[in-house]
Amino acid sequence: MLLCDIGNTSLHFFDGSKGYKEDVESFDIFTYKQKVYYINVNPNLHVNLEKASNWIDLKQFIDFTKYYETMGIDRIMACEAVNEGIIIDAGSAITVDVMNSGSYEGGFIYPGVDMMQESYKKISTRLDYPFNFELNLDKMPKNSQDSISYGFLRLLYSEVMRHDKPIFLTGGNTTQLSQVFKNAHVDEMLIFRGMKTVISRTQTC
Amino acid sequence: MLLCDIGNTSLHFFDGSKGYKEDVESFDIFTYKQKVYYINVNPNLHVNLEKASNWIDLKQFIDFTKYYETMGIDRIMACEAVNEGIIIDAGSAITVDVMNSGSYEGGFIYPGVDMMQESYKKISTRLDYPFNFELNLDKMPKNSQDSISYGFLRLLYSEVMRHDKPIFLTGGNTTQLSQVFKNAHVDEMLIFRGMKTVISRTQTC
Repeated sequence: MLLCDIGNTSLHFFDGSKGYKEDVESFDIFTYKQKVYYINVNPNLHVNLEKASNWIDLKQFIDFTKYYETMGIDRIMACEAVNEGIIIDAGSAITVDVMNSGSYEGGFIYPGVDMMQESYKKISTRLDYPFNFELNLDKMPKNSQDSISYGFLRLLYSEVMRHDKPIFLTGGNTTQLSQVFKNAHVDEMLIFRGMKTVISRTQTC
Repeated sequence: MLLCDIGNTSLHFFDGSKGYKEDVESFDIFTYKQKVYYINVNPNLHVNLEKASNWIDLKQFIDFTKYYETMGIDRIMACEAVNEGIIIDAGSAITVDVMNSGSYEGGFIYPGVDMMQESYKKISTRLDYPFNFELNLDKMPKNSQDSISYGFLRLLYSEVMRHDKPIFLTGGNTTQLSQVFKNAHVDEMLIFRGMKTVISRTQTC
């Protein structure tokens, strides 16, 4: 069994023991003969996966009334992996979702590390500093670098901690954000774990 | 006595009773014969104000050890107007500064309304919604528009409220943010009030 999380630039596969990526541009569906369970957030994928009988879209097994209609399927899969906790998926956007005894409580979207960095730079070249991920979040800043780092990180930190739940951290900027969320469970395979949960459920029904 | 706050695109004047703006491009220093007290955050101003003896830079009267070296002079002037409180200046950036019994406690910088709107749109066209400033901040969102509005506004709100101080709101996006900070003192003349405080202090010394 192969799992595949299709994004805008790459397909992320997991074969049960290891993960690997393939570029969207060079993706050729005919190299995959086995059963592939997938999710897809890429509206412009050049391949029509619905025509390949061995590619199974896990979206069909999701009860969207539990979440909301326009919610990204990758966010939903991360939520499916967690019964109780707050999930931070830090990529081009940082999505934050709250699960309460298996129920989806809601969530929010914050710009990702790169987008925030670019925003500050665009506001003024005087704010063109890399973020200080080791910032002391309990002290109001008195210099430019810490002022933008605090604006970006402390505000996110306060909101996440307010929910007082176990924190699950995944996505491309995990390493940077784990410096801020020191007690988070870092799990780069969270989406795949959710996909496996959904598969198990369909098989026992 | 005329006060002038020079920004990147316009000069904002205050004659003691009313404020008005002049475009940076069309600004001609020779039309001003009276004494003008000014602050300037525009590094590319085409006029050398230091050569005009009737234009007095208020920067010289600021004790920067109280603030920090690279802090914008407009932020400092807003702080000079407030003895006790938290100041939100909502423009291309949203600056937030804390004053405690006349002492500067520190502050942070957050991207402004337009910049945040642009960031979400750039992350995905699926996030291209106007912010909902009437959002219920106590409820975790379950739709795309509220997810980005919460990400932008709730995080800022929580941090500001945490300080439990009177809130002073100024800057170009005051109207929008006053929907979130309902108990804020809205004061579009806050920077000019700070400038007047500094002038009074220099005259009594």
